[in-house]
Amino acid sequence: MSEKISPAVIRRLPKYYRYLEELESKKIDKISSSQMSIEMGLNASQIRRDLNCFGGFGQQGYGYSVEKLKKEIARILGLDQRYNVIVIGAGRIGQALMGYKNFMLEGFNVVDIFDNDPAKVGTEVLGREVMDVARLSSYLEEKNIDIAIICTPKEYAQQSADLLVSFGIKAIWNFAPTDVAVRRGVAVENVHLSDSLYVLSYKLKEKIKGTGI
Amino acid sequence: MSEKISPAVIRRLPKYYRYLEELESKKIDKISSSQMSIEMGLNASQIRRDLNCFGGFGQQGYGYSVEKLKKEIARILGLDQRYNVIVIGAGRIGQALMGYKNFMLEGFNVVDIFDNDPAKVGTEVLGREVMDVARLSSYLEEKNIDIAIICTPKEYAQQSADLLVSFGIKAIWNFAPTDVAVRRGVAVENVHLSDSLYVLSYKLKEKIKGTGI
Repeated sequence: MSEKISPAVIRRLPKYYRYLEELESKKIDKISSSQMSIEMGLNASQIRRDLNCFGGFGQQGYGYSVEKLKKEIARILGLDQRYNVIVIGAGRIGQALMGYKNFMLEGFNVVDIFDNDPAKVGTEVLGREVMDVARLSSYLEEKNIDIAIICTPKEYAQQSADLLVSFGIKAIWNFAPTDVAVRRGVAVENVHLSDSLYVLSYKLKEKIKGTGI
Repeated sequence: MSEKISPAVIRRLPKYYRYLEELESKKIDKISSSQMSIEMGLNASQIRRDLNCFGGFGQQGYGYSVEKLKKEIARILGLDQRYNVIVIGAGRIGQALMGYKNFMLEGFNVVDIFDNDPAKVGTEVLGREVMDVARLSSYLEEKNIDIAIICTPKEYAQQSADLLVSFGIKAIWNFAPTDVAVRRGVAVENVHLSDSLYVLSYKLKEKIKGTGI
């Protein structure tokens, strides 16, 4: 099956996945698009269109199998794989992400953490010794690392990305408060924590209910 | 001026804001929609439509004033205000957000941190003593708090939200890995860190360039 799924649908898949996980934890094994529509706040016909994009599993008047649908979405997102992850930047955000158990559950295994600050290198974070970024090159030659999380200050973000890409890293999850650019063939997600804080500020000002936007 | 701006435009405003901040830091004071289009990866006519929503400030063949546009977007998002913020949950994520300097720069002042774990209450986080959530009620009566950040484990998230709302909190920024629901008139933003990780996983699998989605 071709995997030509539109970016907008891809962006919605994690939301479906979370919702299906919740159904599973409640031991619900079938779900209709209309019920999903009510609970997820999405249009029912959009849900049907989205799920049809990758074959769907719904039967008229019967609904979707929660297990099958979740499995299929996991497969499309690549969550049926295991990933080795390193963190660059052993500040508070880096340490928090290193210890974020929820990622582990989905196959993202954070194995090591790096910093360029001599005061941090050698200290322990969650049972792992903080490594010197100067050792990245030989480290990455030896180990099979899939994803690097950048948690450096803004001014080190792009050079960290360049370094990682030059050493063969193919996916970067960037938490530094600036976008990093990468060459074709390397995946990047720039996370902007403050974006949702700004939207919250707008909602607060306009007294808009949580689900209003 | 009416502030009826569509949700989709509101969601894009933080991105404009960040971009304008970057221009400002580079001492650029005028920008055309076509240049913005190239640099932001958005359609130029969409940019013009977006900015027209709130009056715009562009002049044909002259462009937008970076300063005026940034100021106007800040006003719409409520970033011209100052907010007092508390953190609920003194785990790693809570501590990281408490120390996240970038929020401070935009007027979000994290003043205190709470936990229900006797082992954490009374310890110090970034110079602040972790307070007992049992003291929230009297604390919120006394202090003028605008926003609460929920960083509790999943199972405490909704009850924390209910508590905060019952004590008059009007805005919740939720980092627990589950959506919290609030009554009308209370603003909430549920942050799902893993959503972008899942999209990154998809991009890695499909070898899609960073800006491809």
